Amino acid sequence: MKHFTSVNHIDDLDELLLLAKQIKSDPYAHKALGTNKTIGLLFFNPSLRTRLSTQKAAANLGMNCITLNLNTESWSLEFEDGAVMDGAKSEHIKEAAQVVAQYCDIIAIRSFPTLTDKEKDEAEYVINAFIKAVSIPVISLEGSSEHPLQAVADILTIQEYKTLQKPKVVLTWAPHPKALPHAVPNSFVKMMQKANVDFVITHPEGYELNPEITQNSTIVYNQDKAFENADFIYAKNWSNYNDYGAITSQDLSWMVTPEKMALTNQAKFMHCLPVRRNQIVSDAVLDGENSIVIPQANNRTYATQAILTKILQDEKS
Amino acid sequence: MKHFTSVNHIDDLDELLLLAKQIKSDPYAHKALGTNKTIGLLFFNPSLRTRLSTQKAAANLGMNCITLNLNTESWSLEFEDGAVMDGAKSEHIKEAAQVVAQYCDIIAIRSFPTLTDKEKDEAEYVINAFIKAVSIPVISLEGSSEHPLQAVADILTIQEYKTLQKPKVVLTWAPHPKALPHAVPNSFVKMMQKANVDFVITHPEGYELNPEITQNSTIVYNQDKAFENADFIYAKNWSNYNDYGAITSQDLSWMVTPEKMALTNQAKFMHCLPVRRNQIVSDAVLDGENSIVIPQANNRTYATQAILTKILQDEKS
Amino acid sequence: MKHFTSVNHIDDLDELLLLAKQIKSDPYAHKALGTNKTIGLLFFNPSLRTRLSTQKAAANLGMNCITLNLNTESWSLEFEDGAVMDGAKSEHIKEAAQVVAQYCDIIAIRSFPTLTDKEKDEAEYVINAFIKAVSIPVISLEGSSEHPLQAVADILTIQEYKTLQKPKVVLTWAPHPKALPHAVPNSFVKMMQKANVDFVITHPEGYELNPEITQNSTIVYNQDKAFENADFIYAKNWSNYNDYGAITSQDLSWMVTPEKMALTNQAKFMHCLPVRRNQIVSDAVLDGENSIVIPQANNRTYATQAILTKILQDEKS
Repeated sequence: MKHFTSVNHIDDLDELLLLAKQIKSDPYAHKALGTNKTIGLLFFNPSLRTRLSTQKAAANLGMNCITLNLNTESWSLEFEDGAVMDGAKSEHIKEAAQVVAQYCDIIAIRSFPTLTDKEKDEAEYVINAFIKAVSIPVISLEGSSEHPLQAVADILTIQEYKTLQKPKVVLTWAPHPKALPHAVPNSFVKMMQKANVDFVITHPEGYELNPEITQNSTIVYNQDKAFENADFIYAKNWSNYNDYGAITSQDLSWMVTPEKMALTNQAKFMHCLPVRRNQIVSDAVLDGENSIVIPQANNRTYATQAILTKILQDEKS
Repeated sequence: MKHFTSVNHIDDLDELLLLAKQIKSDPYAHKALGTNKTIGLLFFNPSLRTRLSTQKAAANLGMNCITLNLNTESWSLEFEDGAVMDGAKSEHIKEAAQVVAQYCDIIAIRSFPTLTDKEKDEAEYVINAFIKAVSIPVISLEGSSEHPLQAVADILTIQEYKTLQKPKVVLTWAPHPKALPHAVPNSFVKMMQKANVDFVITHPEGYELNPEITQNSTIVYNQDKAFENADFIYAKNWSNYNDYGAITSQDLSWMVTPEKMALTNQAKFMHCLPVRRNQIVSDAVLDGENSIVIPQANNRTYATQAILTKILQDEKS
Repeated sequence: MKHFTSVNHIDDLDELLLLAKQIKSDPYAHKALGTNKTIGLLFFNPSLRTRLSTQKAAANLGMNCITLNLNTESWSLEFEDGAVMDGAKSEHIKEAAQVVAQYCDIIAIRSFPTLTDKEKDEAEYVINAFIKAVSIPVISLEGSSEHPLQAVADILTIQEYKTLQKPKVVLTWAPHPKALPHAVPNSFVKMMQKANVDFVITHPEGYELNPEITQNSTIVYNQDKAFENADFIYAKNWSNYNDYGAITSQDLSWMVTPEKMALTNQAKFMHCLPVRRNQIVSDAVLDGENSIVIPQANNRTYATQAILTKILQDEKS
């Protein structure tokens, strides 16, 4: 593995999950692997889980971790080729990326989408500007179209909690007051397509994700119908993809409630967090015994540590 | 010791101070104790001494230290139970606290009071929301009603500088242009009540602290009278407690000046810092040879390291 | 070496550069030197290269590194002696500096100039307030009148890339939309005066740097003439020094272009970064094979590590 900015970069999912489980049972076993290795975490956006779990994963591997809030602690960056830089932007991404790369062995970047320029967002223009400029591995800490580290934690959690060989996993859209990115559902869909699960997506008509990502995945517009016999309910809001970045529904009847969960096969409730209570999901479900959002967040550390381990091992060989 | 969010959590003050003194004389002696242990420092408010001394104490113990400015680097948090989260708050404290706890072995939090809602402040609603949500130890880096790490550094400093078995210690209110919290004086009063000192509080009438905290401590409204024979003058502003959070006096005659200090038994001058020069205290006193505010701030490292050591040792046993 | 806040603090440049080269070839050789040593990085201004390369240099030396954004994470500071602190400033530099010094073995500070008060800027009032208040070594991460760590990286880079015993080095002013400090050119001029180079400064008439710094260095007002036979072109904007902090020219004919570079002896192009593309320098030059701005930035790590090594070694002896 060189870069990890998409679920597509996973060659062998079973091998990766085995590694993650080994790491979880003995987190400090590879502490020599990171000696004298530096990871740079670059944030253009807020972060709680991703920031702390990546810092933790790096520490578990004995790595030096440097964190920078690019917007507030550094210079504002220009991304356009050929720009005449006579405005507010102080530095071009070409220089910034190459310079940071020299101080680091791995760069990890969080950069949310514009939600106004679909083409730019789907091109992952920020993360790919780094990849284009540097020769070291680049990791996505959530880009404009994918959040692959989250997806690794998600499938790891499903594997831990499943009771059937091939569980039914439902990704359900749920209402939210703000326009949210497609990165988490995109990566989750890609991951479910790789995994041995019976996968169903449910959302209001018109809220279809990018068809190039959902491909042949089953889409059911009736949420109640979709929930039948489900073993895992994965809730997530996203803004409209076709009417790009718009909020065309805030229908609270899509909130995940105990009544909805009663339709399932005592399904576990999952969400990537942060989650809006009593919008996405009711208190009763989130605080209930079938909610596994907290251990799901804990797996972020081991998912990330597995990816870092793979990259460091592949660099050495 | 499990949590440390109040001076009340100290069982054996003498033992704690002995430990702090041992640490000060040999700060790296327990470096193995913190191996593979992570402390998360969460700041809702600015910090200089607390932030740096806690990072230093953690490093001295070989701990991994993760620092997060919650307001600017992460998501805005909701604290109300049952909230319908359709506004600006992205995440509930219940999830945030549980998630962070999984990445850490100890959580430390700075959260200043509202100074408008006395009940909420006295309930330490932020820090106690963490304690309620998590199972790992929680440390206050100054809460809404106490600043216990400061109080440990304060008594350590008094012990180092005292020349009498039972010195006279005076806590004096002093003027300040802004409304300040009661956390520092509250913890200082509690600590003095535990210590072998002759303790006097002086402030303008109407500026009484919470009587449940001051209890039987001597209060003298005449500052000159209070200063007589004092061995330590501890200056601090606080806003009105009865007229909660109001500034009802900015009387500069309460400033600690050389004339006031001349009334004492060549008292040492103390303050938790940051201090407003020529408001709380005149330059001549702060820059004078009896000012011990700088070594007092230095003791923050050893006080915190003693608390961390106690918690890590008690976790192991 | 005690402090390092000016190129003047370098006693033996050859020895320093030899050390920097040794460190570059074996960066982790002195990892024991920094054990249980703490460096505090204090930022009043944005930083990318300086922040990350200093953190990297400290890590390479095994040091504990504490970073603080003073304006956003801590208290606003008062610098005036005798100030009556009844306004927005919460803490005096005298206390802040002394306190931080107790938690650190070395303090490093970034503090840009006012560009309105020449006297204050030239007195390096922020950095020198720290030096005055503390007894530990103080390093400039770019002050109001010098950026000496940059200058060490600059001469190290020139030594690596030079093909002549005594190369011709040209410092050229170039246009920029904002008023910039004089710190980088000042330190570069001082460094070139110490080095075995044929040094020329070129800028529009009226843009003279401080004559006490340029001294007898050759100044040529015709940029084309200055570029003839140059081996290194070091571009940099600075605001007017005589009409202090003003922008009296934005003449784009001073931009470094391929046509200008064609006048040189296939000169290498240097800049401290961040650089405004198509203002200071055209894309074609910056992206061309003679641009060495990226390895120049990489040398920031080794320059800083050499300075830290010198200071730590001198502290021990």
